[in-house]
Amino acid sequence: MAAPMNRQIVLAARPQGEPKETDFQFVEARMPEAVPAKMLLRTLYLSLDPYMRGRMSAGPSYAAPVEIDAVMGGGTVCRVEASQINEFAVGDIVEAYTGWQEFALSDGRSVRKLDPTIAPITTALGVLGMPGMTAWTGLMNIGQPKAGETLVVAAASGAVGSVVGQLAKLKGCRAVGIAGGERKCRYVVDELGFDACIDHRRGDFPDALKAACPKGIDINFENVGGPVFDAVLPLLNTFARVPLCGLIAHYNATELPAGIDRAPLLMRQMLTKRLTMRGFIVFDFASQQPDFLAEVGPLVRDGRIKYREDIVDGLENAPRALIGLLRGENFGKVIVRVSPEDQPG
Amino acid sequence: MAAPMNRQIVLAARPQGEPKETDFQFVEARMPEAVPAKMLLRTLYLSLDPYMRGRMSAGPSYAAPVEIDAVMGGGTVCRVEASQINEFAVGDIVEAYTGWQEFALSDGRSVRKLDPTIAPITTALGVLGMPGMTAWTGLMNIGQPKAGETLVVAAASGAVGSVVGQLAKLKGCRAVGIAGGERKCRYVVDELGFDACIDHRRGDFPDALKAACPKGIDINFENVGGPVFDAVLPLLNTFARVPLCGLIAHYNATELPAGIDRAPLLMRQMLTKRLTMRGFIVFDFASQQPDFLAEVGPLVRDGRIKYREDIVDGLENAPRALIGLLRGENFGKVIVRVSPEDQPG
Repeated sequence: MAAPMNRQIVLAARPQGEPKETDFQFVEARMPEAVPAKMLLRTLYLSLDPYMRGRMSAGPSYAAPVEIDAVMGGGTVCRVEASQINEFAVGDIVEAYTGWQEFALSDGRSVRKLDPTIAPITTALGVLGMPGMTAWTGLMNIGQPKAGETLVVAAASGAVGSVVGQLAKLKGCRAVGIAGGERKCRYVVDELGFDACIDHRRGDFPDALKAACPKGIDINFENVGGPVFDAVLPLLNTFARVPLCGLIAHYNATELPAGIDRAPLLMRQMLTKRLTMRGFIVFDFASQQPDFLAEVGPLVRDGRIKYREDIVDGLENAPRALIGLLRGENFGKVIVRVSPEDQPG
Repeated sequence: MAAPMNRQIVLAARPQGEPKETDFQFVEARMPEAVPAKMLLRTLYLSLDPYMRGRMSAGPSYAAPVEIDAVMGGGTVCRVEASQINEFAVGDIVEAYTGWQEFALSDGRSVRKLDPTIAPITTALGVLGMPGMTAWTGLMNIGQPKAGETLVVAAASGAVGSVVGQLAKLKGCRAVGIAGGERKCRYVVDELGFDACIDHRRGDFPDALKAACPKGIDINFENVGGPVFDAVLPLLNTFARVPLCGLIAHYNATELPAGIDRAPLLMRQMLTKRLTMRGFIVFDFASQQPDFLAEVGPLVRDGRIKYREDIVDGLENAPRALIGLLRGENFGKVIVRVSPEDQPG
């Protein structure tokens, strides 16, 4: 019998514009060897997130790019297969950042043990993980919602947007979502309880958004950019806040759009309306994770915050799933099932 | 002898682009008649400020535009000529907002009595008035300077910029000014004590600015916009703050510049560097005026904050002076002497 191999997906080429499947390569590497003070993790679930597009490019960002031929990075939920670390035992389920591969060694740093009795372990990659905490920290620290205000969030059926809107509702705000397609919009209103959700593919999208925000917009949780933001900007109220955590509409762009330079328009709006715009990533508020889990954990457990996962089976399907995510083809938090939960390592 | 008249300057036409002298009209109106519960003010000094350009246009801004044939608005230092208000007596010197005219009635609201023994009364329009408070509130509330950080401010020899940089120095920052011409730059360094000042007219301005900021920029007090901001943006450090209180480079623009749309670039910088940009006007922090005067008043009195005034003689010269201010032709805070201080009313 052949020795077990470690299935991985590495970055084969830096994408020009939208990534192609050939920008990724599926490889089988040697199994990592046990070493002192480390543990062997088997990936059960891999999170796919829009920020990964940025890591595929060489340009400067808040994190170093993935090197060519290196394993793609990513958040994971893993099972401990072997451990030489006191705090972790075989069979433990952990949240880690081991990337697009089946096995990895870890020294235990930045690894968090999960309690599977509290919530399904996949939530550590979504509503109770990085996306949920992005929603909570951006809304609380920057958005600063007050009862009676109007919040708008795009990608409203997605991992971040769905939590932003539900939290805003719990704070007494009017929550208006933006999503792609009627099916997602219905889910956002009927299941998640937003006050309205507008399909950005509608020809009259700016007018429909305006009609859904009769008192203007006080908080725009911005994770998309592009034409959606263009429709939001004129509706912002004086003293509106714009937490900015993503620009998925721009990620595949290879150059700046031609036409007029609207940077002066944006700055003029910021001045005359006294807007606050602040870019952030969830790690900027890392110390708030206990507060996040303490507030949002019970809300998820009690069903007051709902979530939806879009599970893709098999590591080999991750490239296509990421390409689809960047096109908005997913419906809910995209998670790749790499190994079955209930099968022994 | 003819009855005394009230000399005024009214808005004759809304400017297209740069204002022309014919956009203003000098008129002689009847003297305001004394009425109960009012006082008659004689303008000694009129403040000219960049925001006035915005009020001449019909577009939406944070304040209503000046109507055609209405007296141009503006901050003033006045002497009380007659009073039917208990709190104000003939001969009192006050800060008011009576606009481009020689006489005005006031009900005393938003009028502040000045103590001429503390500082020259012109300072109520500059270093201890709206521009100085703009500098202090924007720097303290939004810029949040920390010792060792680098601050950049444009229009550094002007009413706001000069105070921003001197305050930043007192907080332990490296203060880098930007100004138009070598003479202003020398003043900013030699007299105001900035660490450096770069002439934005230099052909190598972006490189010179970069060389003056070897550790990048942590605070950009933005009051200009345009090409100066374009040179600042790539130098901003992670977590930099951008208080935004003016865009003088844009005020005369009649349309957005052609070329590429750099709004996505600006937003991408805000995201990846986690910038905070916040538009504000001084009135947003009106309740902090006592704190401002308590901190900055003594600094001015002791000479630790210096200021420079550019006095223009005669109300009839105000239009030309405002046009020059928008071109950067002034050197220091522009104040129009409307009536002599020492001549009885």
